[in-house]
Amino acid sequence: MCGIVGMVGTGPVNQDIYDALLLLQHRGQDATGIATAEPSGVMHQAKASGMVREAFRTRDMRALLGTVGLGHVRYATKGTASSEEEMQPFYVNAPYGIILVHNGNLTNTRELTADMEQRDRRHLNSSSDTELLLNVLAGELQSTTSTVDLDPERIFEAVSHTITRIEGAYAVIAVIAGYGLLAFRDPHGIRPLMLGRRTATDPESGAMRDEWVVASESLVLENADYEIVRDVEPGEAVFITNDGVLHSQLCADAVTLAPCSFEYVYLARPDSVMNGVSVYESRLRMGDRLADTIAKHVPRDKIDVVMPIPDSSRPAAMEVARKLGIEYREGFYKNRYVGRTFIMPGQAVRKKTVRQKLNAMSTEFQGKNVLLIDDSIVRGTTSKEIIQMARDAGALSVTFASAAPPVRFQHVYGINMPSRHELIAHGRTIPQMAEELGCDYLVFQEVEDLKAAIIEGSALEELDMSCFTGTYVTGTVTEEYLAWVEDTQTS
Amino acid sequence: MCGIVGMVGTGPVNQDIYDALLLLQHRGQDATGIATAEPSGVMHQAKASGMVREAFRTRDMRALLGTVGLGHVRYATKGTASSEEEMQPFYVNAPYGIILVHNGNLTNTRELTADMEQRDRRHLNSSSDTELLLNVLAGELQSTTSTVDLDPERIFEAVSHTITRIEGAYAVIAVIAGYGLLAFRDPHGIRPLMLGRRTATDPESGAMRDEWVVASESLVLENADYEIVRDVEPGEAVFITNDGVLHSQLCADAVTLAPCSFEYVYLARPDSVMNGVSVYESRLRMGDRLADTIAKHVPRDKIDVVMPIPDSSRPAAMEVARKLGIEYREGFYKNRYVGRTFIMPGQAVRKKTVRQKLNAMSTEFQGKNVLLIDDSIVRGTTSKEIIQMARDAGALSVTFASAAPPVRFQHVYGINMPSRHELIAHGRTIPQMAEELGCDYLVFQEVEDLKAAIIEGSALEELDMSCFTGTYVTGTVTEEYLAWVEDTQTS
Amino acid sequence: MCGIVGMVGTGPVNQDIYDALLLLQHRGQDATGIATAEPSGVMHQAKASGMVREAFRTRDMRALLGTVGLGHVRYATKGTASSEEEMQPFYVNAPYGIILVHNGNLTNTRELTADMEQRDRRHLNSSSDTELLLNVLAGELQSTTSTVDLDPERIFEAVSHTITRIEGAYAVIAVIAGYGLLAFRDPHGIRPLMLGRRTATDPESGAMRDEWVVASESLVLENADYEIVRDVEPGEAVFITNDGVLHSQLCADAVTLAPCSFEYVYLARPDSVMNGVSVYESRLRMGDRLADTIAKHVPRDKIDVVMPIPDSSRPAAMEVARKLGIEYREGFYKNRYVGRTFIMPGQAVRKKTVRQKLNAMSTEFQGKNVLLIDDSIVRGTTSKEIIQMARDAGALSVTFASAAPPVRFQHVYGINMPSRHELIAHGRTIPQMAEELGCDYLVFQEVEDLKAAIIEGSALEELDMSCFTGTYVTGTVTEEYLAWVEDTQTS
Amino acid sequence: MCGIVGMVGTGPVNQDIYDALLLLQHRGQDATGIATAEPSGVMHQAKASGMVREAFRTRDMRALLGTVGLGHVRYATKGTASSEEEMQPFYVNAPYGIILVHNGNLTNTRELTADMEQRDRRHLNSSSDTELLLNVLAGELQSTTSTVDLDPERIFEAVSHTITRIEGAYAVIAVIAGYGLLAFRDPHGIRPLMLGRRTATDPESGAMRDEWVVASESLVLENADYEIVRDVEPGEAVFITNDGVLHSQLCADAVTLAPCSFEYVYLARPDSVMNGVSVYESRLRMGDRLADTIAKHVPRDKIDVVMPIPDSSRPAAMEVARKLGIEYREGFYKNRYVGRTFIMPGQAVRKKTVRQKLNAMSTEFQGKNVLLIDDSIVRGTTSKEIIQMARDAGALSVTFASAAPPVRFQHVYGINMPSRHELIAHGRTIPQMAEELGCDYLVFQEVEDLKAAIIEGSALEELDMSCFTGTYVTGTVTEEYLAWVEDTQTS
Repeated sequence: MCGIVGMVGTGPVNQDIYDALLLLQHRGQDATGIATAEPSGVMHQAKASGMVREAFRTRDMRALLGTVGLGHVRYATKGTASSEEEMQPFYVNAPYGIILVHNGNLTNTRELTADMEQRDRRHLNSSSDTELLLNVLAGELQSTTSTVDLDPERIFEAVSHTITRIEGAYAVIAVIAGYGLLAFRDPHGIRPLMLGRRTATDPESGAMRDEWVVASESLVLENADYEIVRDVEPGEAVFITNDGVLHSQLCADAVTLAPCSFEYVYLARPDSVMNGVSVYESRLRMGDRLADTIAKHVPRDKIDVVMPIPDSSRPAAMEVARKLGIEYREGFYKNRYVGRTFIMPGQAVRKKTVRQKLNAMSTEFQGKNVLLIDDSIVRGTTSKEIIQMARDAGALSVTFASAAPPVRFQHVYGINMPSRHELIAHGRTIPQMAEELGCDYLVFQEVEDLKAAIIEGSALEELDMSCFTGTYVTGTVTEEYLAWVEDTQTS
Repeated sequence: MCGIVGMVGTGPVNQDIYDALLLLQHRGQDATGIATAEPSGVMHQAKASGMVREAFRTRDMRALLGTVGLGHVRYATKGTASSEEEMQPFYVNAPYGIILVHNGNLTNTRELTADMEQRDRRHLNSSSDTELLLNVLAGELQSTTSTVDLDPERIFEAVSHTITRIEGAYAVIAVIAGYGLLAFRDPHGIRPLMLGRRTATDPESGAMRDEWVVASESLVLENADYEIVRDVEPGEAVFITNDGVLHSQLCADAVTLAPCSFEYVYLARPDSVMNGVSVYESRLRMGDRLADTIAKHVPRDKIDVVMPIPDSSRPAAMEVARKLGIEYREGFYKNRYVGRTFIMPGQAVRKKTVRQKLNAMSTEFQGKNVLLIDDSIVRGTTSKEIIQMARDAGALSVTFASAAPPVRFQHVYGINMPSRHELIAHGRTIPQMAEELGCDYLVFQEVEDLKAAIIEGSALEELDMSCFTGTYVTGTVTEEYLAWVEDTQTS
Repeated sequence: MCGIVGMVGTGPVNQDIYDALLLLQHRGQDATGIATAEPSGVMHQAKASGMVREAFRTRDMRALLGTVGLGHVRYATKGTASSEEEMQPFYVNAPYGIILVHNGNLTNTRELTADMEQRDRRHLNSSSDTELLLNVLAGELQSTTSTVDLDPERIFEAVSHTITRIEGAYAVIAVIAGYGLLAFRDPHGIRPLMLGRRTATDPESGAMRDEWVVASESLVLENADYEIVRDVEPGEAVFITNDGVLHSQLCADAVTLAPCSFEYVYLARPDSVMNGVSVYESRLRMGDRLADTIAKHVPRDKIDVVMPIPDSSRPAAMEVARKLGIEYREGFYKNRYVGRTFIMPGQAVRKKTVRQKLNAMSTEFQGKNVLLIDDSIVRGTTSKEIIQMARDAGALSVTFASAAPPVRFQHVYGINMPSRHELIAHGRTIPQMAEELGCDYLVFQEVEDLKAAIIEGSALEELDMSCFTGTYVTGTVTEEYLAWVEDTQTS
Repeated sequence: MCGIVGMVGTGPVNQDIYDALLLLQHRGQDATGIATAEPSGVMHQAKASGMVREAFRTRDMRALLGTVGLGHVRYATKGTASSEEEMQPFYVNAPYGIILVHNGNLTNTRELTADMEQRDRRHLNSSSDTELLLNVLAGELQSTTSTVDLDPERIFEAVSHTITRIEGAYAVIAVIAGYGLLAFRDPHGIRPLMLGRRTATDPESGAMRDEWVVASESLVLENADYEIVRDVEPGEAVFITNDGVLHSQLCADAVTLAPCSFEYVYLARPDSVMNGVSVYESRLRMGDRLADTIAKHVPRDKIDVVMPIPDSSRPAAMEVARKLGIEYREGFYKNRYVGRTFIMPGQAVRKKTVRQKLNAMSTEFQGKNVLLIDDSIVRGTTSKEIIQMARDAGALSVTFASAAPPVRFQHVYGINMPSRHELIAHGRTIPQMAEELGCDYLVFQEVEDLKAAIIEGSALEELDMSCFTGTYVTGTVTEEYLAWVEDTQTS
């Protein structure tokens, strides 16, 4: 889970990128980075662990000069949170000077790493697949352009070769020093990437000129008054020159849009539109369909009130309530301010529990049969605590419903999930899960309903739903690979 | 607007105070401080500007040794945000060593300051009324106990004298080095203060012993598994010795509970109970009564949907929707991550607008007559922008309703408000305000309805509603004083 | 070992105090603090561990507003280096607001602490004798001025009472908020304090006005173009009002100037003059007299060259060379840049040795009989390593001479020394010491020669030489006290 | 002026590199950097402005894992002090991953930069000649090793090509990820570089193994108990594998050792030996020869005492005194602690003068004819102030002698010097300089004497003395180039 943004402006882009990263903060809160390039090609970067607000100091921001730039927010995977070597963006100075950020996950890193060391002789200083991706691209740019000057055609050729070599999910933004901003998306468009444009006065010529943005979510565009041009297409690359001219080309042979369903379920902000689908509306539709499934499995008199687990399940819960004609209430209050635990010498770590994040208001639970709606259930540990909180607050019975189907498989396309054996749905039937969670009734969205809820009314036909179904859209994910991921994650 | 907490534990209290301050963070985000005292009397403190999460470093926390302590979160008033001299807690070393925090506002600071310099010869190093209050208390403790040892009786005598000398609203927590924790509340109980208890094993004796907490809001108690004992009474002082024995006494002659109505309207968290009234339920009742007023003034066919301005007006809005039988939807999404603006040399400050805090989801507005519910309207500038956002998102018409009556007077009891002439209700009729705001209909809660909504079903009889009515419960607020406040605030 | 400075200026004093502390840095490098007072009485302070250059940030300095102020550099005693509570200056707000720094050591802290808690009811938050001294003074000011206004007469009365109550060595500087700067020195003038004056234009009146400084060493005065007025006399207090008017008075009954001889031996900078004696010239005279003693004990043909141990023994060594007619060379080079040792997890601490501070240049040692001169020998561990370095560099024989007599007793007047049993001279004859150190000849200055070298040609008659003789000038240092100090230092 | 160090150890090298940089701190105090490489090839680096002691935090040091590494201290040239982009080391990831530090200056940067952009397509992100040098080397390594594996032979081939392309003075240390440490020196050996070895137990095999160091000065070797193997030869490259095997080869055709004379005059520490010459002894010989020149030009009765300007002229001054048979005294005391000037809003910058660095002890000047010895005279501004200080302190007459000849030309080989027109010797005769400086007599070392003083008794035959003579040993320094340097420095 990461968020990315890139900009080509007429004036300094540092503050705009910073503002954009704040809007993408929900996609990653462990580390962040910004890089900019001056027209001369001189690049600047700042990266640090923590959230955007804490990570950048005034002097960092002042040093980020330039009219072209990019930014990244990062959700760290296990064991890598504090490592400076793993933070994005990544930079190589040959050829040209390229700095790059990436949202997604490559699934053939072992092969690429071997290539890199033996064939390309490029040094990888981290275990990041982003560094690998950058070096594949750099190597291809180097081969492609050894005798002629760099132009959009050569760049797209290098991207095509890169796309041939890498497998997995990726939305990529890069700055090429002295040239411009490059962005491309994998042939299935698994991870999102939007293109936006606005016009501004060029401070030098005084003429009006296009300014461009590419970003993980549309709200970045809207918030800064960019017109939404479109999604970057699956397998498409766009290259925007330093002076604001856009070039684009399809750089993959077989492309099928099959975006990650989890963006709609949980990750994206509701006020985003991606792949032509409003996240908010898709969540309303998830509620609509979930209501039907609930009605099938739960007696009507066992539900007095519908409640969301704030914040992401609110639209679904509201729609469930409307459809079932049952009152909607907010019985949980979410604590917004999260701190740290300071271990004093000789003290044990205290377990942080869900109770520090949610408070139950007993008025809403006392003597009622409650239906709690969450966006999804992964490990189940949080759901279990929430159900207990509802009981402690006086609920007569607790029905728990998930707007997504059971998560039964690994997610290999850039969303952090635990190993299979840690998933509550792993090897359990729904009644067994209900028992484990301690709820009276447990209802999950049907897989087909989730798909329909997302694509309904749009041109979208396919989705990656691998974590629910075990079918991976890229076609190259083997059981051997899944076992290797599981091993390296847990070791 | 401030939040305070004090604790007497059996083990270190630093982490518990830190966790409590996170829960009170909504009461003040500009600065924060923690102080602790070891049984030997040695005191430690750390204070810094910013939010709790950012303010305390590991080494600060480790240095905060001791089993008794207190904490503060601060909402800075104009022009004093960054001044270290104004941050709480305040400390005096004579007599005894006292460290103190305060929520509220004193209204006779000019008289007290003159006394302090001429009679008590105590130095005031800031313009803070908290430093003043501490020195009044210290002076009284010094006079009271010049020849005999300190005991609860002497402490309560000093508090009584202090209460006689100071005017205004105050909830106070202090640690007396080597003795224990003192807390008291003004004779009208204007600002909240709750007392909680839990039991824990004394690590030295191995016996069970009481641990105590006093805090601005009950959720601090609940969250750390304290039993809610009661509100500290108006004019009451409680003194808890270092080893956990509670003493309490009424220290004022004429007391009448008349808590600040703005806690219920906006300031407190919904999951708090104060003065026997659930904040959440009071907000539901505000919605219930507001619905009737709306029904009187707005044609039923001019409302297709009811929406809250997140977060504080949600309960009221939900209840308005339920009562009017109109659909409830969330059309605004609130940005949670707020950053800073870095001024580059030669750049002008960009205006931060409401649009950076709220996003309107057009689906919910397109072609609809919307009823927006907010908790209150003060300056009106935010409301005006929100109304425009609703129109831009496609609303046919916009009705705006405030769960509180028009704010027409200054708040002198510890809630930051602008000068009278900056209030939109100042010198304007409701139609004039509607025109200024640009909405089709504008509805305010009636004063009597607000009062009834808060006190209904509780033992509470009086409220401070001065900012709506101009009647100040302490009886000593003169027009001359109000003019002086206005002058010093604006200068 | 500490250095102090106080200033009353016509403009801001922060930078001048900072510059002065840099010049006093040799007197203490573990922590430092600055406090200033605005004419209104508002005080500001900043203190931090480390050296002056590292301790103060730009924002600290900018906050130190005011035309009156003081500063401190601290040499931490065992176990207290990093404790913020022990750092100077110390502040009390009652009466008046007083902030104070101190160089020296009180020898009746146990009695004073008992008094403070039982009689004065003042809280001591540290084990610092400076905090104690400040509270004695504050208590006396409070009693003295309870009914009348503060004026120089009352201040001097309070200082007189303070001097009666405290025992030991002290040079004190304090700022009284809204009034001015107070400085006083113990009745034997054990620790140094100089008074300086210059004139400057008052920015308000435009008239010329006196600016004043008090500081541990005269070079602070010279460096900032102050005229040296005189030493503050033993038992004298000076009070300089905020607008630059000097008052002074003798505040002790029996005074005898008997300054600490160790200032001349080692502590003070050579370019300082204190108590009418140039430190540099006293060191030349120490060399002159030491030469005679060397000539008595060491055969002339056993010395080919004379070398100082840099930096403090240079003047003595040069004079020894001149008097003996033997060549002077610098065979040791002193490393100026000292860093830290970072312990990696799993690593043991590496011992830092003299070799990291000194380098021997073999050219100067090869085949020569060398005479090494040091200012004094305390533990002997450094001397032993140096002698070995000289041998390793090729010296035929090594004679070691100390410009001071053997250190055999504790120093209780503010110079950090190890416990008696850690002193190499404790329980050893000179031949035994020579054997322990591994040198061929070992020569010490005679006690009478040291005294003569310091006082010769000045009005000075007495010195504190207690660490050489065991005779303590204050007369109140008992064997029981010395044992207590020894116990508390080692525990 | 820079200092460099590289190490191949059996255990972590971070602390050893840190300690080495402290010993090289006199060669550059504006910025510093360390990089290390783990056996796996993962590299870590930390760089910051300021001195070593201030620049590295504990967490930086802990992250510097690895058994191979290098470090740098930097003396910033005009206008580049605070720029992070200019700090060393520099890193490229292709080919192999190379990180590099450099002491010296390249004189054909304009040609190399053009090549780099047009031919090598490598991005230069700074104006540093070090980044340029690294990229030349990287480009050569890439061409050389495109089809075969990296081995010492290929590395030396790449170094040979690099040496052919670059002009100027350079001592270079680089780490090649996964391979080892490379060091080389320009064909004239203008800048110093020493090779050292010690043995240590390999923690893995348990066998004894060589550990290696290369550093600017021999004292780094001595201080950490390395045996001095030899100077790296002019035009020689040494490559030490990760497991401690040394390879070396001459990589230039025509080599003549002609080291920079300014190392001996001023830059190097006296306890260093470089190119077979002890710096200390060369300074003694400079004194010896200078004494003769002084005797020729100054009447014997015009000198009562000889004094050094501390610290670097001490050996020369001592020898002048001995040779002339005149007393040697230290009349100036050097302030060791230098701070900053904090500009308060509305304040002007105060001029920092020599008086803040040196104090004159009047005893030594009063009524005497003094001979002051300095290592060299560049701008003359400091000398002028010193002469005035001597007069103010009471000197009857002042003779000023420089142990080096007049500096009349630019230094283009890595020592920062002002533009020609800022040199006091530029366009002035010695009498004119004496008048400008305000001294009674002014004596300079003869050029031939300086050369003789340095090379006497060693195998050294040539020196670069270009700043005294205008003859540049590399032969490629044109007047056009000198004018360009002058222009870019001043602009």
